[in-house]
Amino acid sequence: MPKEPIRLDARVTLAHGNGGRLMRELIDGIFAKELGNLDTQVDAARLPLETSESDWLITTDGFTVEPLEFPGGDIGSLAVHGTVNDLAVSGATPRYLSLNVFIEEGLEMAVLVRISHSIAQTCESCGVQILAGDTKVVRRGQGGGLYLATTGIGQRRQGIELGLGQIQPGDRLVVSGTVGDHGTAVILAREHFGLSGNLQSDAASVVPVTEVLLEYPGLRFMRDPTRGGLATVAHDIASTTGTTVRLLEEQIPVRNEVRGVCEILGYDPYYLASEGRVVAVLSPEAAELAVADLQQRGFRDAAVIGVIESGTTRVILQTRLGGERILPELEDDPLPRIC
Amino acid sequence: MPKEPIRLDARVTLAHGNGGRLMRELIDGIFAKELGNLDTQVDAARLPLETSESDWLITTDGFTVEPLEFPGGDIGSLAVHGTVNDLAVSGATPRYLSLNVFIEEGLEMAVLVRISHSIAQTCESCGVQILAGDTKVVRRGQGGGLYLATTGIGQRRQGIELGLGQIQPGDRLVVSGTVGDHGTAVILAREHFGLSGNLQSDAASVVPVTEVLLEYPGLRFMRDPTRGGLATVAHDIASTTGTTVRLLEEQIPVRNEVRGVCEILGYDPYYLASEGRVVAVLSPEAAELAVADLQQRGFRDAAVIGVIESGTTRVILQTRLGGERILPELEDDPLPRIC
Repeated sequence: MPKEPIRLDARVTLAHGNGGRLMRELIDGIFAKELGNLDTQVDAARLPLETSESDWLITTDGFTVEPLEFPGGDIGSLAVHGTVNDLAVSGATPRYLSLNVFIEEGLEMAVLVRISHSIAQTCESCGVQILAGDTKVVRRGQGGGLYLATTGIGQRRQGIELGLGQIQPGDRLVVSGTVGDHGTAVILAREHFGLSGNLQSDAASVVPVTEVLLEYPGLRFMRDPTRGGLATVAHDIASTTGTTVRLLEEQIPVRNEVRGVCEILGYDPYYLASEGRVVAVLSPEAAELAVADLQQRGFRDAAVIGVIESGTTRVILQTRLGGERILPELEDDPLPRIC
Repeated sequence: MPKEPIRLDARVTLAHGNGGRLMRELIDGIFAKELGNLDTQVDAARLPLETSESDWLITTDGFTVEPLEFPGGDIGSLAVHGTVNDLAVSGATPRYLSLNVFIEEGLEMAVLVRISHSIAQTCESCGVQILAGDTKVVRRGQGGGLYLATTGIGQRRQGIELGLGQIQPGDRLVVSGTVGDHGTAVILAREHFGLSGNLQSDAASVVPVTEVLLEYPGLRFMRDPTRGGLATVAHDIASTTGTTVRLLEEQIPVRNEVRGVCEILGYDPYYLASEGRVVAVLSPEAAELAVADLQQRGFRDAAVIGVIESGTTRVILQTRLGGERILPELEDDPLPRIC
């Protein structure tokens, strides 16, 4: 049968999700075309694994960001980076992904094509392959344009032991760059506050950062500060290890634009998502060396931003003026659909 | 901190998805409790793989069924069975899953608890473990109560070669049980037509069926006839192999209740989803033996229902009266959110 090309001025209909002709054309015309290695004829694909001297890790993440496209990225690049990053902060090299697509009836085909292209490009730049996919279409008013879910599989050298359980009092908290850029960029793109500027999401692969940090035997733990931001990572550390996490306001890198927008809108940048940063815990000696190393390799805003102290479970912000303030665990949600 | 138990009379709020305290309580109180092996402290979990003498397969699927609970199952059991079945029809033993949860603000906590319990029970009965999970909450009016995405990983003995490419003219089409039960049960549960009866979804693991069929060297291909039903599997076979698929109306098992509901509502049961059946292609000799074998093991409705013929790409239904009718490829979608 001759294939109809996908019409960019069309919209996705319920029939594109029914398993029949239109769905086949959608998958062949967009996903199979963009993702050349994806075998759309099989119910399950071969997962090529070499297990000598390595562990395999698995992670999964859902993405609901609104708007679907924002300065610095889109839901497609965000999904690939997000899953790649969960593997990277676990010490693994990202290798394979699966991709679930939930489309709301009425989505512009041109948007779907752009986002699929973005997914393919991001996979290529991160060195990962999508091996399995699925598409569902839901009625208008039962979705958010497009939701994605990605599961990632990565390979970790044996002997790498990272985790909250490795953290000890005296260890230092390190961040690889400015915090809150993604959350702020999405809020601005969504709410049309009339605040413009050059602010972009920081969404990116953190593999270049984790590769540097993994060279330091004093590395205890890494996490990407997405939902809930830096403050939530600090709370996870404090509550799991029963320690006090002291953050040093003066050292935490925040862009002036982010600070300004947060002041106007009443957000705290420490709770806003970053999608291309790493928060890491290292021994005191390793922390200083690793930050210098990161700065030299182009991560100029990398900094030691805090210390782990024995004591009660809490997160303290030591202010510029030397005062102290408790950073509470995030309660309300000012920001649904930020990632 | 003392843990608040999950209140069954509460509803999910946006704050349950923000990465903070309520989200932690939701995950600890429901998912971690039901899924004992799930480590909620890590960004990526170890995937325990033994690779001697086996291949690993990966598959993924999204689930949007409405209503979330229906006679014979719910979205949770459907999701686990659906992904387990995609591995089973590929010749693999299902082993591990990841689970993505997209909750619409306002979902009753009691429903989420029941469905999580159903997920856990179905995993246990299928012998699979959930290794990774993620939860997102979207605003009211931007979801369908609950959507799930599952990625599955299974282990296949080396040497099993199944696929559309193995099919030859003369091969027989076999089905393991009645068709259209799931689709019909969901339509009835959703639309409140006032048609009652004992009709239940057929949603189930097909591993007991595929294990029987895999004993026959004449087995070429298996698929579970979900979205688009039996007719869509027949079309996939015809269009990929360039053959004519002849279906024998008299041999296709359809429950009287399904036939009756379809006649009243104007659906064709051959296009309706089954979620616990297998459509398989086998050599003529193997087909007869395998069907007798299945019937003996309790799959009493198993039948040889068609034949693969060389010729043009099409699907023909040979009617009870000896006539012929072309079964077209599914075009419209009478049934969104059926799986």
